[in-house]
Amino acid sequence: MHKMTQKDEYQRRVRQVRKQLHGLNVQGLIVIGVENVRYLTGFRGHDSWALVLPRQAVLLTDSRYTEQAQGECVGCRIIERKGPLAKEAETVIAKQKGITALGIEDRCSVAMLKGIRKYLSAKIKPASGVVEKVRVVKTDDEVKLIRKASRIAFDAMDYALKQLKAGMTERQLAAIYEYKLSEYDAVASFETIAAFGPNGSRNHHQPGQRKLKKVDTILLDFGASYNGYCSDMTRCFAVGRVTPFFKKVYEAVAQSQQNAIEIIKAGVKGCDVDTVARDKIKQAGLPVYRHGLGHGLGLEVHEGPRLSNMDKKSSLKAGHVITVEPGVYMPGKLGVRLEDDVLVTDTGAVVLSRDKRFDVKPERFPLLKV
Amino acid sequence: MHKMTQKDEYQRRVRQVRKQLHGLNVQGLIVIGVENVRYLTGFRGHDSWALVLPRQAVLLTDSRYTEQAQGECVGCRIIERKGPLAKEAETVIAKQKGITALGIEDRCSVAMLKGIRKYLSAKIKPASGVVEKVRVVKTDDEVKLIRKASRIAFDAMDYALKQLKAGMTERQLAAIYEYKLSEYDAVASFETIAAFGPNGSRNHHQPGQRKLKKVDTILLDFGASYNGYCSDMTRCFAVGRVTPFFKKVYEAVAQSQQNAIEIIKAGVKGCDVDTVARDKIKQAGLPVYRHGLGHGLGLEVHEGPRLSNMDKKSSLKAGHVITVEPGVYMPGKLGVRLEDDVLVTDTGAVVLSRDKRFDVKPERFPLLKV
Repeated sequence: MHKMTQKDEYQRRVRQVRKQLHGLNVQGLIVIGVENVRYLTGFRGHDSWALVLPRQAVLLTDSRYTEQAQGECVGCRIIERKGPLAKEAETVIAKQKGITALGIEDRCSVAMLKGIRKYLSAKIKPASGVVEKVRVVKTDDEVKLIRKASRIAFDAMDYALKQLKAGMTERQLAAIYEYKLSEYDAVASFETIAAFGPNGSRNHHQPGQRKLKKVDTILLDFGASYNGYCSDMTRCFAVGRVTPFFKKVYEAVAQSQQNAIEIIKAGVKGCDVDTVARDKIKQAGLPVYRHGLGHGLGLEVHEGPRLSNMDKKSSLKAGHVITVEPGVYMPGKLGVRLEDDVLVTDTGAVVLSRDKRFDVKPERFPLLKV
Repeated sequence: MHKMTQKDEYQRRVRQVRKQLHGLNVQGLIVIGVENVRYLTGFRGHDSWALVLPRQAVLLTDSRYTEQAQGECVGCRIIERKGPLAKEAETVIAKQKGITALGIEDRCSVAMLKGIRKYLSAKIKPASGVVEKVRVVKTDDEVKLIRKASRIAFDAMDYALKQLKAGMTERQLAAIYEYKLSEYDAVASFETIAAFGPNGSRNHHQPGQRKLKKVDTILLDFGASYNGYCSDMTRCFAVGRVTPFFKKVYEAVAQSQQNAIEIIKAGVKGCDVDTVARDKIKQAGLPVYRHGLGHGLGLEVHEGPRLSNMDKKSSLKAGHVITVEPGVYMPGKLGVRLEDDVLVTDTGAVVLSRDKRFDVKPERFPLLKV
């Protein structure tokens, strides 16, 4: 983005936040989440707040970050604090007229809220999901960054898989992947999961010292964060040869994912997408995953919306970016999950994590040689 | 640790927590911090709570983690939840008699507290630093793990520095270091800082695309997490040759660190240690660091106690493990910080991050060739 359009965009985001404040009976919002501060101001540092006030948006930071903020924040005022954040916020707010109540993001800890209330004379009300509500619909520039974060992740994983050999540990494979990301100016968007053999059934497996066998299976759940934006994909492979049962499970999961992606478009309920995915796995006579089918992603690797049968009401909107990740888990035996990142449009889904080297197709099982 | 002594140790920790509850007017504590849950139960997973109740300690987890918990938790009861954590907690607590008020760790978010209160019939009171108060004094086993985490970090950094060459980026150096950690079954305990040249003055510099020159300076702030325990060190080097001024700054910082470490022992106030370190830098006519002199470390890379002139009261105790990290920062010009991890004993300080390859001595400047 050019500086000018960048400025317009940040100001649009702030306006979208302001629009919600009236309904909350507050005149401003204290924004504390790092991703939310970044989203509204462009600031990439930490330990700083954004204040959305009636006539201005302010970044409150400290001397470590002032130089950086001046380069990054094009649409807001920058204030370098001397004392505690809340004390400085009070000074800024006291100068504005008519502020009697302020919202604060309810991801704030109980301890922090207590501290803040000591300094501020306005009433402080916890508020839920205000910036997140704006963030959930992505701009074209944001979608481009997620797509790029996906391409980088595939490039790095392609490199890592070329180093694969029997005897390599899960942790080594994950580490090679994460190392390679650094060459693309990216970092892992979450702790990479590399699970060999039956470890694939552990949904939150941390890569360990399990060594790859000559005949084995691999589950990789990996993502990159590039320029702040995240990708999140999962792929499964067999090494050496594949059992008919593993192949059958893979086909069912791939088909489940494909069916789900096919019905995604603006207006469709998240729970209905989840049901389509689950039904395919049930039909195949396999145990159905117990997590949700997917989650939004953007500046955070987990954000709204959710694709889940726990939520019967919410519908998808154009501009949502979500993962679609059905799985089959049989503890001690196997785990297969396939995950892609998808943009919701008015006419259907666009798979942002499409990559020829890592294509998921029910009819084509991915076998690796080591 | 053997299973038996392990069990005794976890039970001792739970008793230490219970002792504090009377003063808080609660009969139990909901422990939500991952490190605190781990400290009290041994559990290494996520999304789980520990409940410290009058007659038992409970780990509340879900089906993803039950198998893992059975292997890791030797001193408490394990309950697999079906519904929300708070709902399951209510079921457990309702079976106990006489629980009318429970504490919850105040690192809990405002949103989470609101959700919890919906389910629980007991009064829920935010409580501050209860488990942390026990954790701050380390056992011999914990000290051993921190020492090991330090040795691993030095081994990995030694390896990374052997790959150093002109043209390498900050991010590549950090990535090689982090990759090497994986071979020791460790991960970075925080985002590695590799800052070349004037970037060293940016306290929270994220490694970027700045390339190493043939004549340059390097600041490395790096740590490892091994078996959950963290190390955190900083070293500075010149590459090719060193300017007399850089050398002078290095000497002052090294002397400042040495002076501070020399006065550390149980009973000494943290602020007094900080003052000793600051005075040396002032005497050298250099700008004094604006952060604290140090922080505790253990399961978290930042925990209590603090060495800071903002806290005039707190004294060090035997068993505290703290960083000692004075620095001199001149934006656009240079940054030098030296950091070691130190165990406080009744008679003095034991440097846990001592390593011949990375010894800090005022009289010996570390020059690298590339």
